[in-house]
Amino acid sequence: MGRALAQPRGGEQVVALPPLPEFRKLVAANRILAHEGVVDAFGHVSVRDPRDSARFVLSRSRSPALVELADLMEFTQDGAAVDARGRTPYGERMIHAAIYAVRPDVVSVVHHHAYGVLPFTISDEPLRPVVHTASVIGAEIPVWDIRTKFGGTDMLVRSLEQGRDLAATLAGHTCLLIRGHGAVVAGASIERAVLTAIYLEVNAKVLLEALPLGVPEALSAEEIAKSSEAQFSPLALDRSWEYFCQRAGVDPG
Amino acid sequence: MGRALAQPRGGEQVVALPPLPEFRKLVAANRILAHEGVVDAFGHVSVRDPRDSARFVLSRSRSPALVELADLMEFTQDGAAVDARGRTPYGERMIHAAIYAVRPDVVSVVHHHAYGVLPFTISDEPLRPVVHTASVIGAEIPVWDIRTKFGGTDMLVRSLEQGRDLAATLAGHTCLLIRGHGAVVAGASIERAVLTAIYLEVNAKVLLEALPLGVPEALSAEEIAKSSEAQFSPLALDRSWEYFCQRAGVDPG
Amino acid sequence: MGRALAQPRGGEQVVALPPLPEFRKLVAANRILAHEGVVDAFGHVSVRDPRDSARFVLSRSRSPALVELADLMEFTQDGAAVDARGRTPYGERMIHAAIYAVRPDVVSVVHHHAYGVLPFTISDEPLRPVVHTASVIGAEIPVWDIRTKFGGTDMLVRSLEQGRDLAATLAGHTCLLIRGHGAVVAGASIERAVLTAIYLEVNAKVLLEALPLGVPEALSAEEIAKSSEAQFSPLALDRSWEYFCQRAGVDPG
Amino acid sequence: MGRALAQPRGGEQVVALPPLPEFRKLVAANRILAHEGVVDAFGHVSVRDPRDSARFVLSRSRSPALVELADLMEFTQDGAAVDARGRTPYGERMIHAAIYAVRPDVVSVVHHHAYGVLPFTISDEPLRPVVHTASVIGAEIPVWDIRTKFGGTDMLVRSLEQGRDLAATLAGHTCLLIRGHGAVVAGASIERAVLTAIYLEVNAKVLLEALPLGVPEALSAEEIAKSSEAQFSPLALDRSWEYFCQRAGVDPG
Repeated sequence: MGRALAQPRGGEQVVALPPLPEFRKLVAANRILAHEGVVDAFGHVSVRDPRDSARFVLSRSRSPALVELADLMEFTQDGAAVDARGRTPYGERMIHAAIYAVRPDVVSVVHHHAYGVLPFTISDEPLRPVVHTASVIGAEIPVWDIRTKFGGTDMLVRSLEQGRDLAATLAGHTCLLIRGHGAVVAGASIERAVLTAIYLEVNAKVLLEALPLGVPEALSAEEIAKSSEAQFSPLALDRSWEYFCQRAGVDPG
Repeated sequence: MGRALAQPRGGEQVVALPPLPEFRKLVAANRILAHEGVVDAFGHVSVRDPRDSARFVLSRSRSPALVELADLMEFTQDGAAVDARGRTPYGERMIHAAIYAVRPDVVSVVHHHAYGVLPFTISDEPLRPVVHTASVIGAEIPVWDIRTKFGGTDMLVRSLEQGRDLAATLAGHTCLLIRGHGAVVAGASIERAVLTAIYLEVNAKVLLEALPLGVPEALSAEEIAKSSEAQFSPLALDRSWEYFCQRAGVDPG
Repeated sequence: MGRALAQPRGGEQVVALPPLPEFRKLVAANRILAHEGVVDAFGHVSVRDPRDSARFVLSRSRSPALVELADLMEFTQDGAAVDARGRTPYGERMIHAAIYAVRPDVVSVVHHHAYGVLPFTISDEPLRPVVHTASVIGAEIPVWDIRTKFGGTDMLVRSLEQGRDLAATLAGHTCLLIRGHGAVVAGASIERAVLTAIYLEVNAKVLLEALPLGVPEALSAEEIAKSSEAQFSPLALDRSWEYFCQRAGVDPG
Repeated sequence: MGRALAQPRGGEQVVALPPLPEFRKLVAANRILAHEGVVDAFGHVSVRDPRDSARFVLSRSRSPALVELADLMEFTQDGAAVDARGRTPYGERMIHAAIYAVRPDVVSVVHHHAYGVLPFTISDEPLRPVVHTASVIGAEIPVWDIRTKFGGTDMLVRSLEQGRDLAATLAGHTCLLIRGHGAVVAGASIERAVLTAIYLEVNAKVLLEALPLGVPEALSAEEIAKSSEAQFSPLALDRSWEYFCQRAGVDPG
């Protein structure tokens, strides 16, 4: 035990990635997702490397609540660490690797097990946007089941092949549910991915409460499209990013 | 990003509105609604200007948890900023503008997306007062759907015409639900609007839990009328305002 | 506004009741019930006066989270303040007055609107103990409806006559539900009343979750009797009182 | 009252057990389980004595949130205190005693009344793992009812005979539910027992939300076996232990 905490050992500090705005924002994203209860001990968030779009940056294996700049590691799109220096990467980094490889529009990826979303990963009830702040999750959220192609596994997305299969199900969507496991959110920026993950959870909780009251009225396709745009306008995005940063006690950058 | 935070830029402080008791109370109202979970990143609360009843005061576009005296802006009943000084107003200020124009009895307006209320905005189950502390929400709460008159939109109340349509549905009621979006609460004082918004959410949560147990016993019209009066007596209003101020860490004024 | 906060005005301090252990414990009880979410802005807790069993002690009209020793007032069993000194009493002190008058075994009374309990006040589903820590709530919990005898009111127990009617329905029970309003808990000590109120709420929440799963298995009458005794043994009572005091940041006395 | 707090009296400090890593970790386990809401005023966690596998170590009767190194007491497998020094042990220490006696693989035992788990103790709905982080709870969770063999009791596991009956129902499983009472979790280490208890509660809450949506898709036997192994690998175990220690404000040791 204690290995995670003490890494790296030796009194010698790892030379971290340069403190680019995107990397500082990635640390903020980790803290925000933890503070809002989207991630717990598990879950992770990455960003496409602004210096090399064929690479991405993700923390070493550490709970998002604790991630610091020095924890960030760079990976290739095969999920190989560029300069590990003895740090242990997340077992499921292939989720990120595979999505960045096929989705040039994606700049940030969140993987999480938010408790409000989980019920939808084990039921046939579709998770659809019912409130305008959650329009950004998109009109349709596909469900990926690792069992379909890979049989009885430990449920983790460990290989690039598994990551690619997941990314193929995600296709052009923003969110994806993983049966009995969690969700993936892909965004055109860190802020977008984080806010989408937060309001995916809000929408899930509202929907869980609404379902016993009768068939809920959903947003129309047109409303989803137009509202997404409004929610990602600077007016709404800046305001909510400032708010979530303040709650998590991090610098909005 | 960061635009919201940094506004206004230039090392020069905006000359804020004078620190009248009503304006300090409005800042407190923002913090209380945030602390009690009635608003999150989004939502806003306004007050009719005590110096000019044809105008109202509302924060610039900022999450209520963060609002300070210097963020307050004055608006005409057309929703035009009197002295913007580069500050960005909320996109939905027309909700406030239109209500103040037709409801001389209203001194404060809250717009929010409280999670317990949202399920009732997407179902046919009416949100009715079932506990006496929530009698102040009124016997009937109309539901407004922007789609009815304005078709497929981004769900936001952006134009004065939309605000007026909403205000016409609100009519003489205290609360109104907006389909797939949130709610509006109108009060004869800041304290009343805030407490009504808080107990609207309490009542919604209690009702959500009670509905699976069978048809809930509602308050009678007479009970609602008499209990509202009791809840807005100084005895109850002072006690609860002191309490919510203390929890939010603000001066009760 | 601010009247509650500023009472009494004049730079002159009210001569409080002497700091007897029971009065310090009553302050602790107020803070604990607030911290555990049993009371919010409203609700109150009293103790029979250890110096005169025909009287009881209750805070002036103030939210329990804020109550201090100087807020305590003494009342006769008619609900009259012995020495008000300008302080405003709770409007519903008759609940306490009437119970102390007919229940010599009762030393402390809690009145609250806990959110988990409220659904049972508006449904026919009986609130019965289903977990052993809640055995202390008793095998049966009567429901009192002010409408039955007093017609359309403001729902508050304002007169001694109303209090007496409530006390008659409570009879020898420990807990009572008030339709569309809240609950009353009567205990043989402050600690017992407080712990019963807390586990009444725990039991209500567990039952709300269990009901959709099928008819819940209840505790038998024998289990309720024996388990109550165990939960009120020093072993369990001391441990939980220490715990709830520590959480609320008050001295266990 | 106050006995629990003041023990032992006399200005004389109890000579605590030596500060072995396992004992410090046991204190951390108490705090973590309290912080995560698995235990409240009640519940306890023990460890097999690393110095003598025929004995185990458990706090004196104190709420887990408050347990310190000086509270730890050593017990034989008959539940007798080795060196009580006037300290009062938990009434239900026989749960621990009986399990250590028949399960040489078990190093730590948690007993709790987590609110999400309780509904499953009073219904026929089986509590089964539906999300991969909870695979560690095992494919089957037996339910033990004290009434079956011991009739109407105070619901507490007070005698060694009762503890042995419970342990016989637990058999080789990891978790066990106790009707109308709570649960027991047995682990091969303190970390494993704690994390299993936490994710048992997460799984229960997710399942409670999922059941109204239709028959939930469960993990297969193969998935449970393989995922348990993954969740207890150093990669996942170290990360989550660090996280839960940090949240509870304790040293990961």
